[in-house]
Amino acid sequence: MDLTKITGPSFLKKLNKQQLEELAQDIRDFLIEKCSKTGGHIGPNLGVVELTIALHRSFNSPFDKFLWDVGHQAYVHKILTGRAGQFDTLRQYKGLSGFPKRAESVHDEWETGHSSTSLSAAMGMAIARDIKKENNYIVPIIGDGALTGGMALEALNHIGHEKRRMIVILNDNEMSIAPNVGALHNILGRLRTAKEYSKAKEELESLMKRVPVFGGKLAQAADRVKDSLKYLVISGVFFEEMGFKYLGPIDGHDFDALEKTLEYAKKVEDRPVLVHVVTKKGKGYKPAEEDRIGTWHGTGPYKIETGAFVKNNAKGPSWSSLVSETVRKLMKEDKRIVAITPAMPVGSKMEGIQKDFPERFFDVGIAEQHAATMAAGLATQNMKPFLAIYSTFLQRAYDQVLHDIARQKLNVFIGIDRAGLVGADGDTHQGVFDIAFLRHIPNLVIMMPKDENEGQHMVKTAAEYNDGPIVLRYPRGNGLGVPLDEELHSIPIGTWEVLRDGKDAVILTFGTTIPMAMEAAEELAKRNIHVKVVNARFIKPLDDEMLHEIMSKNMPILTIEEGVLKGGFGSAILEFASDNKYNHIEIERMGIPDRFVDHGSVDLLLEELHITKEETIARIESLVKNQKRLGKKTV
Amino acid sequence: MDLTKITGPSFLKKLNKQQLEELAQDIRDFLIEKCSKTGGHIGPNLGVVELTIALHRSFNSPFDKFLWDVGHQAYVHKILTGRAGQFDTLRQYKGLSGFPKRAESVHDEWETGHSSTSLSAAMGMAIARDIKKENNYIVPIIGDGALTGGMALEALNHIGHEKRRMIVILNDNEMSIAPNVGALHNILGRLRTAKEYSKAKEELESLMKRVPVFGGKLAQAADRVKDSLKYLVISGVFFEEMGFKYLGPIDGHDFDALEKTLEYAKKVEDRPVLVHVVTKKGKGYKPAEEDRIGTWHGTGPYKIETGAFVKNNAKGPSWSSLVSETVRKLMKEDKRIVAITPAMPVGSKMEGIQKDFPERFFDVGIAEQHAATMAAGLATQNMKPFLAIYSTFLQRAYDQVLHDIARQKLNVFIGIDRAGLVGADGDTHQGVFDIAFLRHIPNLVIMMPKDENEGQHMVKTAAEYNDGPIVLRYPRGNGLGVPLDEELHSIPIGTWEVLRDGKDAVILTFGTTIPMAMEAAEELAKRNIHVKVVNARFIKPLDDEMLHEIMSKNMPILTIEEGVLKGGFGSAILEFASDNKYNHIEIERMGIPDRFVDHGSVDLLLEELHITKEETIARIESLVKNQKRLGKKTV
Repeated sequence: MDLTKITGPSFLKKLNKQQLEELAQDIRDFLIEKCSKTGGHIGPNLGVVELTIALHRSFNSPFDKFLWDVGHQAYVHKILTGRAGQFDTLRQYKGLSGFPKRAESVHDEWETGHSSTSLSAAMGMAIARDIKKENNYIVPIIGDGALTGGMALEALNHIGHEKRRMIVILNDNEMSIAPNVGALHNILGRLRTAKEYSKAKEELESLMKRVPVFGGKLAQAADRVKDSLKYLVISGVFFEEMGFKYLGPIDGHDFDALEKTLEYAKKVEDRPVLVHVVTKKGKGYKPAEEDRIGTWHGTGPYKIETGAFVKNNAKGPSWSSLVSETVRKLMKEDKRIVAITPAMPVGSKMEGIQKDFPERFFDVGIAEQHAATMAAGLATQNMKPFLAIYSTFLQRAYDQVLHDIARQKLNVFIGIDRAGLVGADGDTHQGVFDIAFLRHIPNLVIMMPKDENEGQHMVKTAAEYNDGPIVLRYPRGNGLGVPLDEELHSIPIGTWEVLRDGKDAVILTFGTTIPMAMEAAEELAKRNIHVKVVNARFIKPLDDEMLHEIMSKNMPILTIEEGVLKGGFGSAILEFASDNKYNHIEIERMGIPDRFVDHGSVDLLLEELHITKEETIARIESLVKNQKRLGKKTV
Repeated sequence: MDLTKITGPSFLKKLNKQQLEELAQDIRDFLIEKCSKTGGHIGPNLGVVELTIALHRSFNSPFDKFLWDVGHQAYVHKILTGRAGQFDTLRQYKGLSGFPKRAESVHDEWETGHSSTSLSAAMGMAIARDIKKENNYIVPIIGDGALTGGMALEALNHIGHEKRRMIVILNDNEMSIAPNVGALHNILGRLRTAKEYSKAKEELESLMKRVPVFGGKLAQAADRVKDSLKYLVISGVFFEEMGFKYLGPIDGHDFDALEKTLEYAKKVEDRPVLVHVVTKKGKGYKPAEEDRIGTWHGTGPYKIETGAFVKNNAKGPSWSSLVSETVRKLMKEDKRIVAITPAMPVGSKMEGIQKDFPERFFDVGIAEQHAATMAAGLATQNMKPFLAIYSTFLQRAYDQVLHDIARQKLNVFIGIDRAGLVGADGDTHQGVFDIAFLRHIPNLVIMMPKDENEGQHMVKTAAEYNDGPIVLRYPRGNGLGVPLDEELHSIPIGTWEVLRDGKDAVILTFGTTIPMAMEAAEELAKRNIHVKVVNARFIKPLDDEMLHEIMSKNMPILTIEEGVLKGGFGSAILEFASDNKYNHIEIERMGIPDRFVDHGSVDLLLEELHITKEETIARIESLVKNQKRLGKKTV
């Protein structure tokens, strides 16, 4: 069928099984084709085609509430709720978001992006429903990977205790982003094989009825034995213990099984239900189906026929790879180094480390808090943990960085991956807050390199630094393609680098915005304005000496950063000026204003945010003009 | 015995049972007496006297590592490791900390304060040990309350998966800070009664061996039935499922049981062990033993004979009580309000709410992340959640406030209790970061009242505000004793208040530092310096209009805040000046420098931090003098 004609999910109720199967196929074809052009989370969405259809058949959205945990598996939901026509714009500037968005549709009741939030939100919705004496269903859909996130477990604990009506769909695809980790995963594995025990269970139950000794004193025990059979077949003991009615495991690609189970779940009134659905990530598209490590979790454009990814034109290595591979090299010499990732071994390009040093590599699952504090524990024993973590996900470990790592001044090396704008993933994933939420934490060193060669030296710097935690930020995407030095060396902490000298004004910037600043300076030189450009590679501590030199010369300053302005790097410069009584200096800041930044290509976003060469030129010109108007002179 | 003579725990190994009992009694008497003067966490420590002695007998600290989760139960450990002589200075300025401190003793391997960190840290230590091929024991001691914190569950999941050697002591006292919440607690409750099933289990096991039908096809099933008996007696199924060897429950006040179990635990080599110890909080001191709601968790000084608390001389109501009671009043009229606390119903004085509105009050346990996102879920359904949370514990929910609440612009009212310096609890608990970690989050309103009357109007303001999240900060301790208006009213968002006019300089401050600023202004007036003092009650958004007025008059400005300077309120003023091209204004900031602040009375800490009347006077004088020297004039 023409999916773009769908305006809402109600038509599903009229379809027969064959029509449902056809629809599922149409959706798969549609997703494979659209994502081959835009890129996107193709693997997770191919896995939930039947499940999403079945959910929209059994429930009445938006009266009933779906909460898509993490949210990257909501494409099918978007199609069924009338958004197929927008898929050509998926994850593009001003286009369809790759995640649920309240502004997009009344069917998107809860926005996600970060993992493990759906159960807590569902609990809030269930409480609201009960207070208002309404009777809708609340249906969070959560993957087995997201279930290992601490807040999901906090929520399970509370939901099981309160016994509020809720139908949790556990979408168990045997793989979250990377292959799953942890004891919970083992439990789920056992649940998946529980069917083979069911016959044994029946026979045992019948046996129990026939054995005479189960009279008298053991009568009660017999009931418990019968009860214990549910443990014997290991079906759902964990969740039943937590207070849930456990249903499953069922085949998430079987419409009949899904429908039967969901209808049964709707009838349970005395407690929350957990429906364990087993699905196959990438189902129906061979390259994605055969993926075992998570390459097809989220992708760029690809060729449908071969599954070959369309190469980008990057000149340099990916930043993740540059950093992780440099760490790997250092691990050979430095036995103290232990590498940790919270479920991002592929994204953070740590496969090489995993292969070479399996005993010093730890994927802890989606568990950022645990990852950070485990690193702190390692550091107390004179190890040197390297924790690679996306900027946006480090938000989850803010307290652990502050209270466990920095407060104890432990030698943890945090690699902040995807720092700055990330583009297509949008407002839930932009790595634009980390400077503001880290800069005020005592004992932290924060640095960001201008290119991949400086990047590798900064890895060395971090590995050699032994005076507390040190943070290395690096952006999403690839380096500039500069040559890499053979020999690594440490960069002195808190030292900046003058990239270009000039007497009229100063640009202080770091990381990704340096090339743009250099181009602006080049252009300004043609207009006879000579700008000093500084690679402010240490965001903390600042290069006090250089700042004193610059400020004592009375030069106007422009700070540029791909991060939020409030409390950011520019504010650090204002603070330095105030603390050192350089109040007469003109300082302007360029960066991200006080709002969330939606999805789109980084270039378009930078333009929207006025972080551009043109803006830089205009602001420097205005600063210099004002300086002259006021009769101020640079010394 | 004279406890101050103890230099280390090795003497314990030579004591016989009677001597151990006597020592336990001596420690109890000592704790009851010392804490009656200094205050402290008397309840938790009386509960772990025998347990701590037994741990130090069975293990060899510091070779073996103890990790005291939360850490307020480490007094006995401090006594046994040679610190009894310092108990007169407990929790006082420059005195003995109320928590483990690495700088205090080699026996304090891991610093705590926030809950649920010990398992992650222990995992880090276990990995380090195994890489170094050492063979010490790692022994985290965690309460049943702390176990509900998400990161503890993340760690359990990872530890159970990795099967690294570790002995987790679950100190189950049936009450964390407040009575426990959640499904986990119910599971623990069942475990505690498991003994009565043990006989039935034995009989069943013997039965299984005798029933002939268990041959042939069912042979394997028989093994599983036997295995399933462990579920039948419900002993440790949850932890066994997670991959632990479960031992217990045992009486935590019985030296023999403790010793036997710990020695057994030491012999388990193939996986981590969880020893379930049941203790009684407050044991041996009647008022604390009889406490059912958590009053004796942590206290101020008290009279030993009666258990009566020594009254403080506060003139006003406690801030927690003022805010919670005002919320309670509003809950009568506004049925949308739902109150939430993460395990602090007593600390946040929410007993009245709990009593009057049990269906709209939720204690979610130690689960700050879940609390915040559950509030967000409620807000999506047009409810008005009030989340009371200590500033320091809100750190745990940073990502949830940003990603779930603020990004979706949901109407959540967060009451930040204990904002600012908290005194005796020290560096793990100071509420000095919240402005810096919240101010850069878009869509947030942040306010702090000058006194309890303004405080109650701000509660009303927050309740009526429907344009996103709103945060009300209030300090630890009591209000000023000002009269309270009968009628509540909203304060216009982003409006400040001039408390005293003056032409020579301006002090911008808010909350607890206002009285000090007013006194300084009074004193300066006598010296013919006339200072305008502004109640900057909205930290975000700023009062732009008033700032333009002040800055256009060229007046020097001093900002004062009981929070960190980096990224704080003062930085907001610097940012405003820069953004609006008031670069010529002299702005100085007073606040907390870039370091952690230890325990001690708030007054002494403020003095140490140079946040005093004298400093205010000196800095204003210097600012005004400089203004004159530069020939600048206020307009």
